[in-house]
Amino acid sequence: MFTPLSRLLHTQIPIIQAGMIWCSGWELAAAVSNAGGLGTLGAGSMYPEQLEGQLKQLLNALEIDGQPKKPFAVNLPLLYPQVEDHLRLIEAYQVPVVICSAGNPSKFTSRLKNAGCKVLHVVSSTRFAVKAQEAGVDAVIAEGFEAGGHNGREETTTLCLVPAVRQAIDLPLVAAGGIGSGAAIAAALALGADGVQIGSLYAATTESSAHQAFKARIATAVEGDTRLALKDLTPVRLLDNDFARKVHQAEREGVGPQALAEILGRGRAKKGMFEGDLVEGELEIGQVSAMIRQIVPAGPLTKSLWEDCQATLKRLASLTS
Amino acid sequence: MFTPLSRLLHTQIPIIQAGMIWCSGWELAAAVSNAGGLGTLGAGSMYPEQLEGQLKQLLNALEIDGQPKKPFAVNLPLLYPQVEDHLRLIEAYQVPVVICSAGNPSKFTSRLKNAGCKVLHVVSSTRFAVKAQEAGVDAVIAEGFEAGGHNGREETTTLCLVPAVRQAIDLPLVAAGGIGSGAAIAAALALGADGVQIGSLYAATTESSAHQAFKARIATAVEGDTRLALKDLTPVRLLDNDFARKVHQAEREGVGPQALAEILGRGRAKKGMFEGDLVEGELEIGQVSAMIRQIVPAGPLTKSLWEDCQATLKRLASLTS
Repeated sequence: MFTPLSRLLHTQIPIIQAGMIWCSGWELAAAVSNAGGLGTLGAGSMYPEQLEGQLKQLLNALEIDGQPKKPFAVNLPLLYPQVEDHLRLIEAYQVPVVICSAGNPSKFTSRLKNAGCKVLHVVSSTRFAVKAQEAGVDAVIAEGFEAGGHNGREETTTLCLVPAVRQAIDLPLVAAGGIGSGAAIAAALALGADGVQIGSLYAATTESSAHQAFKARIATAVEGDTRLALKDLTPVRLLDNDFARKVHQAEREGVGPQALAEILGRGRAKKGMFEGDLVEGELEIGQVSAMIRQIVPAGPLTKSLWEDCQATLKRLASLTS
Repeated sequence: MFTPLSRLLHTQIPIIQAGMIWCSGWELAAAVSNAGGLGTLGAGSMYPEQLEGQLKQLLNALEIDGQPKKPFAVNLPLLYPQVEDHLRLIEAYQVPVVICSAGNPSKFTSRLKNAGCKVLHVVSSTRFAVKAQEAGVDAVIAEGFEAGGHNGREETTTLCLVPAVRQAIDLPLVAAGGIGSGAAIAAALALGADGVQIGSLYAATTESSAHQAFKARIATAVEGDTRLALKDLTPVRLLDNDFARKVHQAEREGVGPQALAEILGRGRAKKGMFEGDLVEGELEIGQVSAMIRQIVPAGPLTKSLWEDCQATLKRLASLTS
C-alpha cells in the first residue's frame, strides 16, 4: 500500500491495466488483479448483456485466499451509446473502481461516487485534469501522445504532460502512454505520478481477448510502425497496415472529417483487433509496441514489471550524492 | 563525476545545454559550463568568422580557478553548407566536445576523434543510434518527438525512445526532448540515460542570444502551443503564430514539399528567434515551453535542475521496498 494510488484502489501494486476495446475481458482483468494490480474490463466494446456476463465471470475469478476479493475496474467511455445501461450494471454489481474516458467528468462522477465507486478520469491535457478534479473524481489518469488509445489533439507527450498535471492538481495521479517497462514505471514515479496505467503490454498477453494474429503482429512491430491518425474524428494511434496507410494518405491529401469517417466505416476496430484482419482492420496500439517481443501471461508480467521498477529505484538510489 | 557521461565529458553535472540556432552563443555556453554542465555553441546559425569570434570569447569566459578550463561543446549540423570551415576551426581551437546532428555519423567522426574531440551524435531513432555507435561516436543523444529542434519523422517520444536505444547500444546515452525539470532528469536516468540534453529551458535564459520578445513569448506559452511541422522538409516543432498556422493549414490541404519550402522562404528562423518577429518568424521550441514561466540566468538554472534531480532521486529511494 505504498502510494496514494494503491491506498485509494486497495491494490498491492500501483499498476492499472487499461481498459482496451476488444482486448480486455474478464480473463485479463482477473490475471492482473490477482497479481496485485488493478485489472479493468473495457466496456467500450461490450453490449450491456456482455458486460454483465463479463462482470459475473470476473467476480468469480477473483481469488479470495481468506481475504476480501481483489479490486477491479470497469472502463466506461462516456460517449458510449448505451452508457445508461452500463451505469446501472456498475451500480448493481458494486464495481469498486470506474475509469471514465472520452467525455465530460461532471456528467456521472457524483452518481458513481454515490454508488460507492472510486472514480478515475482519463485526460490528455492539464486543462481537463483540472476539470476532472473540479468534478470530484478520486484520481486522474494523464495519458500522453505515445499511447495507443484515444489521444489528445495537443499531442503532449507523457514526459511533458505528467509534470504539468502534477503541478496543477492535488489528487493521486496515474501516468499512461509509453509505459513499457519497470524502468518506465520508475520514470513515471520520478515525474510525480503515483502509479501507471499500461495498455499495449497487456494487449499482447495470453489473457488478452485480442485475436492471436493481432497479438503476433504487435510482437513484430518495430519503431515507427505506429502513427497518430484520425485527429479530425477521434485521434487514435494506428499500427501500420493497408487501412492505416489509406487513412494517412487521405489525411495528407487534406480530406475532411466526412471522408475520413467513410474510410473508417463501421466495425473496423473489431475487424482488426478481435477478428484478426491485419490488412483492413483498425489496429490500435501504443509506441511501446516496438519493445514487445513475445506474448506473455499477464500475472507474471505485472509482477516482473513491479520488480523491475523496484530494481530501477534501487539503482537510482545509488546515484544520490 | 558520477555517470559514464560526466566522466566522458569531464563535467561535474550530466547536463548538456543543447546547441540551438540563434539562441546559443558564448554567453550561454560559458554560464552552463561554469555551473558544472556542458555549454554548447550552436554553430548552425554562425558563419565561420562568427564561430571563430564566439570560440575566442567563450575560451576567455571559461573560469580557471586554478583548475583546467571547463569543458564545452560545439554543435555542428552536418548539413551546414560551410561545414568544412567549421571543422577546421574545431580542430584549430581544440574544441573538446563536438555534438553532431542532422547528418551521417560516418562522415566526420573519425576526423574529429583524430583531432582529439569527443564526438556525440544526435539521433531520433534506435536505428540511427546503432549506426552512430558503428561509426565510432563516444556517446549518443536520443531526442524525442517533444523536442523543439529537428525531430524524427517516426515521432517516437523520449519515454519510448530512450529505453529502446539503451537496449541497443553500450555507449553513454543522453536523453533529449521534454526535459523540463529536475524530476524529468531523474526520469531520464530511470529510463537508462546517463544524462540529459536540455534546449528549451536554456533558450529562455538571460544569457540566451534569442531576442527578448521570443524569450517573453516562450514564458507565456501554454500546453498545446507547439506543433511538429514541416515533416516533408525538415521536421521542426513550431510555436503557434501566423507563420506556423500558415504552415499547418498548407499541410492540412496536402501541399507538397515545394510549396512548403516556398512558404518557409529564407531567413525565417533568424527573423523569429533572433530578430523577434513573433508574427511571421519561425519560432522553434519544445513542448516543455508550457512549463517555463520566467527568464532566469543559466548558471543558477543548471545548479537548481541538478539539485531538484537529486531531491527526486532521494524521494524515489524512500519508495523502495
